[in-house]
Amino acid sequence: MTKRPHILITNDDGVNAPGIKHLWQALIEFADVTVIAPATEQSATSLSITLRDPLQIDRIHWKSEFPVWTVNGTPADCIKLGLSMILKKKPDLIVSGINRGSNAGRNVLYSGTVAATIESVLQGVPAIAFSCYDYWDTDYTMAELHVPKIIHHTLDHPLPTGTLLNVNFPSKEAKEIKGFKMTRQGKEFWAENPAERSHPAERHTYYWLGAKIAQFDEEEDCDITWLRKGYVTAVPIHIDQLTDNEHLRSRRESFEKIFN
Amino acid sequence: MTKRPHILITNDDGVNAPGIKHLWQALIEFADVTVIAPATEQSATSLSITLRDPLQIDRIHWKSEFPVWTVNGTPADCIKLGLSMILKKKPDLIVSGINRGSNAGRNVLYSGTVAATIESVLQGVPAIAFSCYDYWDTDYTMAELHVPKIIHHTLDHPLPTGTLLNVNFPSKEAKEIKGFKMTRQGKEFWAENPAERSHPAERHTYYWLGAKIAQFDEEEDCDITWLRKGYVTAVPIHIDQLTDNEHLRSRRESFEKIFN
Repeated sequence: MTKRPHILITNDDGVNAPGIKHLWQALIEFADVTVIAPATEQSATSLSITLRDPLQIDRIHWKSEFPVWTVNGTPADCIKLGLSMILKKKPDLIVSGINRGSNAGRNVLYSGTVAATIESVLQGVPAIAFSCYDYWDTDYTMAELHVPKIIHHTLDHPLPTGTLLNVNFPSKEAKEIKGFKMTRQGKEFWAENPAERSHPAERHTYYWLGAKIAQFDEEEDCDITWLRKGYVTAVPIHIDQLTDNEHLRSRRESFEKIFN
Repeated sequence: MTKRPHILITNDDGVNAPGIKHLWQALIEFADVTVIAPATEQSATSLSITLRDPLQIDRIHWKSEFPVWTVNGTPADCIKLGLSMILKKKPDLIVSGINRGSNAGRNVLYSGTVAATIESVLQGVPAIAFSCYDYWDTDYTMAELHVPKIIHHTLDHPLPTGTLLNVNFPSKEAKEIKGFKMTRQGKEFWAENPAERSHPAERHTYYWLGAKIAQFDEEEDCDITWLRKGYVTAVPIHIDQLTDNEHLRSRRESFEKIFN
């Protein structure tokens, strides 16, 4: 791409999270950037959209010359309102993040960061999600360094319609990063086993969803395995390939007979 | 399956929605049933989980002998708390619905009803989502009639690990239903184009996500096409096949070169 691209930035950690500022910092030199992000944290909201509450758009100011908007909803709400109400024309690319914590493996199903890119692809705009594997000692600076290369490559080699790119940065220091891997989705995810607590006055029991990662035997060639080895991973995710074709072939006939 | 199965019921329209009672009615003759459903409506919450608010479990009473529980969260929260805190052992099957409105096509990405079955499959329990295509004149009675056949078939011919069944009932009267089709996922989805309103006193602008269905040219063999023709559709959905393998093959090499 030779002209200066217009890139829309969003996230699920909210407009005030450090990760989104690092993403913005990574882009401003080579792109025209608009930020449209949730007003508050929306982690693990998946592709949730707000149907029963009114949505509001507010303009806020990071630096006066840059357009930054907030929406009091989810990442998917931000994309819907951004494309239909805020932007005059579709951006060249939508990027989401940089998320605090892993969106590798099956986390793509829960993640609001990835959901923003699913909504983008549904609306016909190519999109990339960026996340740092490490939730506690998140090194956005290392991620910021590599983001422009991935964006340039994606603009030069467009994603197919219906496909987004899910990028995760490993839990390593910048000098320990071994390289980039384009690979398959692994299995690991935040299993969130509930923890029990008791209210001090009313004594009723309540529960917090925890933050335990469910681990599995992983394939050699998947994002989880490469992240553990110190690679930045990029998984092309397709939103229209959910049908289990093998089961369909084997069960179709017997299923269709049970109608009467 | 010869023994009486234990089936967990949930939904996203909330414990007081008519559809969940029809689902329960369809099962009680042949199954031991536990209901664990959201206390309030959770439509379009996708695989959202509640991380920043405490979750509470309450017992309510439909008929004294049947266990009915509510959770003040999403369908995925219901499955997480149900399996870890309420039930002593895993049920034989989890069913979700009967949803008011279509979850065919790409709606599986937004639907809380389908998300409950995704969470079930992630937790290792087979699951079926049931939805009525018609949002306005929803005929749950017709659906109730067919639900037991689909459940018996699924118990007799188990779904593969990682696969759920997404069932939709067409917008037709019972006598017009032509049969059952096991098929592929179509493209149509609730696009929710935002509508603008103005507050009477403060005059600020706010937005509602609407309810417009985005329609596409659909394949001959997909749920949307068969629903239009008057068939009940069942799509096996796999949660681990999101990788776009074709793009991976074609772009892997050039992507991995851009690291340095």
